[in-house]
Amino acid sequence: MSKFKNIKALTFDVFGTVVDWRSSVAREISMIGTKNDFTLDWAKFADDWRSGYVPSMNRVKNGEIEWTNLDHLHRMVLDELLIKHEISFISDEDKEHLNKAWHRLDPWQDSVAGLKKLKGQFIITTLSNGNVSLLLNMAKYANLPWDMVLSAELVHKYKPDPETYLSASRLLDIPMNQVMMVAAHKKDLFNAKSLGMKTAYIPRPLENGPDTQIDTAPEDYIDLIAIDFLDLHNKLTI
Amino acid sequence: MSKFKNIKALTFDVFGTVVDWRSSVAREISMIGTKNDFTLDWAKFADDWRSGYVPSMNRVKNGEIEWTNLDHLHRMVLDELLIKHEISFISDEDKEHLNKAWHRLDPWQDSVAGLKKLKGQFIITTLSNGNVSLLLNMAKYANLPWDMVLSAELVHKYKPDPETYLSASRLLDIPMNQVMMVAAHKKDLFNAKSLGMKTAYIPRPLENGPDTQIDTAPEDYIDLIAIDFLDLHNKLTI
Repeated sequence: MSKFKNIKALTFDVFGTVVDWRSSVAREISMIGTKNDFTLDWAKFADDWRSGYVPSMNRVKNGEIEWTNLDHLHRMVLDELLIKHEISFISDEDKEHLNKAWHRLDPWQDSVAGLKKLKGQFIITTLSNGNVSLLLNMAKYANLPWDMVLSAELVHKYKPDPETYLSASRLLDIPMNQVMMVAAHKKDLFNAKSLGMKTAYIPRPLENGPDTQIDTAPEDYIDLIAIDFLDLHNKLTI
Repeated sequence: MSKFKNIKALTFDVFGTVVDWRSSVAREISMIGTKNDFTLDWAKFADDWRSGYVPSMNRVKNGEIEWTNLDHLHRMVLDELLIKHEISFISDEDKEHLNKAWHRLDPWQDSVAGLKKLKGQFIITTLSNGNVSLLLNMAKYANLPWDMVLSAELVHKYKPDPETYLSASRLLDIPMNQVMMVAAHKKDLFNAKSLGMKTAYIPRPLENGPDTQIDTAPEDYIDLIAIDFLDLHNKLTI
């Protein structure tokens, strides 16, 4: 226990940390491609879709456009990508279904078992830029046993806006230093730590594909590094 | 299935519908009384505490005071009741603990088993005037397997404000007529139905104590009456 004995709640980044968005999204879009005899680097398509939401999210952050949830940002990017790749064989209904591929993401192998163990001792909640319905449908699909679904959508502020992190402490009614942010991305942890949260880094080396390198070096803003959620449970409860 | 085949989510009133607030709160306060050789009708005390929050909630509704969550309203009423009954032997720490008795309410006998069954086929969420931390701590205490905790606190509007009901449909991204409000109180169902939700009435004859009568008559705004959550599951899935 020692330095973590006061932790009451764990807030999880979701995309990449809990679920493998890249393989899942690539699989869904490639199935549509195959059905229509259309070939593309679908993993790259998934990467472009994922990274494409950042500029539109920034327009929300800057106040340039009004609050728009992640489902709608995903759809805007999808429509652009389909035009770019001259993919015209997908019906409107299939586009809508494809856009919801982000609701059907497979968990990493340890995620469900790890979360179930952690749930026995902590409040476990998402703290994600995904909208509530996306996160809820994903939880049903992937059997993620959240106590609560906290989302940027609840405060209309996307991470890294401080309000998103602060809202977790406020809604859980638990001081920031008794809430631990769990993420596969150092930037998320840096932001959480700067606001007073505890931080756990779970590197997910396959998030961006098999040919990528990730930075696993310790940092002064990281309180704990674990290889997966089962290891996190061990390290928090020994 | 028939008329309920489109239902995707069930939103539950909590106090009285899922948990037996009266016995639970009376038990906690009576323990403190006994320890201090002080006798009172503690069930009546619990009743007064419960009904006392309505006037202060109305002050929030009218805009007379700014948003105040249920924990704080409960504490205001508790302080008044302790003065009224000249109870001065409770320390500040014990008052805070006692106020959180509302986080430690026992479920009705069918609640956990019924919710677990319902969770297999529907999104199940609270839709309560209780604040998020109250509902979450109660879920941990009572083993209530919510998919989501929806609360008046998320929109700063107490039921029966339409916004509270509408927020459920919006955040779940499910049309109002595919969301079913489940409550032990007809007024809650009347409000939900008037906004387009489906409604299930679960009379809880013991909510206000053994010597009370409740109205179990059907109403045109009630789509389904069930004797408990197991019966509700049966009626929704046959």
